Amino acid sequence: MPPVDFDHRRRLASAAAAAEEAGLDALLVAPGPDLVYLAGYDPPPFERLTALVVRPGADPVLVVPRLEAPRASASAAGALVALETWPDGADPYEAVGSVVRGCLRFGVSDRMWASHLIGLQAALPDSEFVPASRAVSGLRARKDPGEIHLLSRAGRAADEAFSRVSREGLAGRTEEDVARSLAGHLVDAGHQSAAFVIVATGPNGASPHHEPGPRGIRAGHAVVLDFGGRVGGYCSDITRTVSVGNPGGEVREVHEIVRSAQEAAFRAVAPGVPAEDVDRAARRVIEGAGYGEAFVHRTGHGIGLEEHEPPYIVEGNREPLDVGMCFSIEPGIYLAGRFGVRIEDIVAITEDGVVRLNHAPRDLTVVG
Amino acid sequence: MPPVDFDHRRRLASAAAAAEEAGLDALLVAPGPDLVYLAGYDPPPFERLTALVVRPGADPVLVVPRLEAPRASASAAGALVALETWPDGADPYEAVGSVVRGCLRFGVSDRMWASHLIGLQAALPDSEFVPASRAVSGLRARKDPGEIHLLSRAGRAADEAFSRVSREGLAGRTEEDVARSLAGHLVDAGHQSAAFVIVATGPNGASPHHEPGPRGIRAGHAVVLDFGGRVGGYCSDITRTVSVGNPGGEVREVHEIVRSAQEAAFRAVAPGVPAEDVDRAARRVIEGAGYGEAFVHRTGHGIGLEEHEPPYIVEGNREPLDVGMCFSIEPGIYLAGRFGVRIEDIVAITEDGVVRLNHAPRDLTVVG
Repeated sequence: MPPVDFDHRRRLASAAAAAEEAGLDALLVAPGPDLVYLAGYDPPPFERLTALVVRPGADPVLVVPRLEAPRASASAAGALVALETWPDGADPYEAVGSVVRGCLRFGVSDRMWASHLIGLQAALPDSEFVPASRAVSGLRARKDPGEIHLLSRAGRAADEAFSRVSREGLAGRTEEDVARSLAGHLVDAGHQSAAFVIVATGPNGASPHHEPGPRGIRAGHAVVLDFGGRVGGYCSDITRTVSVGNPGGEVREVHEIVRSAQEAAFRAVAPGVPAEDVDRAARRVIEGAGYGEAFVHRTGHGIGLEEHEPPYIVEGNREPLDVGMCFSIEPGIYLAGRFGVRIEDIVAITEDGVVRLNHAPRDLTVVG
Repeated sequence: MPPVDFDHRRRLASAAAAAEEAGLDALLVAPGPDLVYLAGYDPPPFERLTALVVRPGADPVLVVPRLEAPRASASAAGALVALETWPDGADPYEAVGSVVRGCLRFGVSDRMWASHLIGLQAALPDSEFVPASRAVSGLRARKDPGEIHLLSRAGRAADEAFSRVSREGLAGRTEEDVARSLAGHLVDAGHQSAAFVIVATGPNGASPHHEPGPRGIRAGHAVVLDFGGRVGGYCSDITRTVSVGNPGGEVREVHEIVRSAQEAAFRAVAPGVPAEDVDRAARRVIEGAGYGEAFVHRTGHGIGLEEHEPPYIVEGNREPLDVGMCFSIEPGIYLAGRFGVRIEDIVAITEDGVVRLNHAPRDLTVVG
């Protein structure tokens, strides 16, 4: 894979501007996707505090544990930010405090550990803390072409994993066995790693986030396959529901309703459309068919460095969709004790139009 | 592996009692190691709030997203706790608020996302939030025999991975290549997954948390190998520093100082000894040899469901060690631009005495 170079310097400047616009004096960014996005630095999140300080009108500073200073210097962040180190046994929150003196309103990255936020709140009394996503998610949600390239590669690799597992056949195997197989296909098809695999057969399909177990897959079952991995840090996420042997009439009917709902939601996507309108488009089809109560979740979520991130495609989210946004469309119908059906593609709003990043067949696939 | 059954009911009762003793009205436990420990439930941490509410004198309640209710019911937690569900689009913090009405002092699990804590703080104004570790870490730090069994299995598998990579030889390979190989050995030797691998050759060894890169390993290099995985959810973590071909005099000398420091710290471990005394025992040896400034981190960390957890073996931690505690002893010397040496074993304080859970040779291993 040719490396994709991201312009972290521009992202840091945009984040500082977005912080100012949100009325924040500083962003405090912990290890995780925000830090990768802004500075290209990806240490594991640990009990030792690492925090990137981004302020309007000031150079960014990375507060790091002393023993990790060489690692931080060697990363992309080394050329972008000044380092402030703190040694084991010292108070890292005071170290941050001395960098942000005079600041009162802070955005902290959503995935910062609560224990670190509590430490910062104690060290910076009379300050206000809000989620940094208020400032950062507007940037991260609008993917640049390099990011869409990686999401697209991840999508194609997920399609290929679906194709391979379909050809293998599922009958007589356990969910766990198929899940192991799918995790292997994800990597073999081009992911750097598998992130998650749901295999839910027969009645288990009625649990949207079912954990694959020892249940055997039998002829006549509908099987929900929902899986994804990472390519260059960016996620794939696809769901297909297959029939093992000939489907019963109701599986066929419910699958067609979900397929129509997914198609209706896809057609509703355009720049300027409120996110909730896409949810409504899917829900209208399913409610119209009499299954409204069985569609127990939102229609989708943004995707990028995280499997789930803004924009959320959910009733109540009036945020207008925009060019660069990438998100799942994944309506489902869940019938307790019987079966479930979900169909999910990742969709990207590009300069050239709205495109799907998954191309595996959306018609009901019959497998052995 | 025979399954290890943990007594979650007893753990939940102990946590409620510990919360009361810490002056807390409720613990709010997010997905992560605390939730696995207390209720055997291990969903991925996501933007949708899942929180286990543990209160003195009341039954535990698990607040879960509606679509994950079937998954939670099917887990060990299903038989232990009542479920309160909230649907997509609703406010999950209000859902927690209605469960904890009347509570004012909360312990939140250390790894809860900051965005969730901020949501709870807004929904529960005039309340106080502290890290739940104040109540829970005393329980989790004292491992029961089933937990020590898993840590011991993980330790033996890590020893075996070291043995395999040593036999392979390192000369002429890149750090990245050896890291991939070690990740494979970890799984082949019995881990369910590899968690992390550090391979740091020559000058890179002076960075304690070096990320393996394209640097070639050459004759004469000291190479720091620090790696671990999971067995039944419990972590291994071992470090050995090897010499590629005959070591130079200073590598040999520094390695012997670190080995002596590691041995001195191990001998200092006993129930009732303050944790910082173990750090001092290692540091005294290294300072006495004139390398005090080059030992840039604490001597160790507890280990269990997390790679790093209490007790921390660090100056300032006067907590007395106790039976059941398991932690690393890992002194190191880091010489910028030249090389580094670290030696790490996991140590357990059992009813029958203090034992190492790693048995790979601590003398300097010469590899090809």
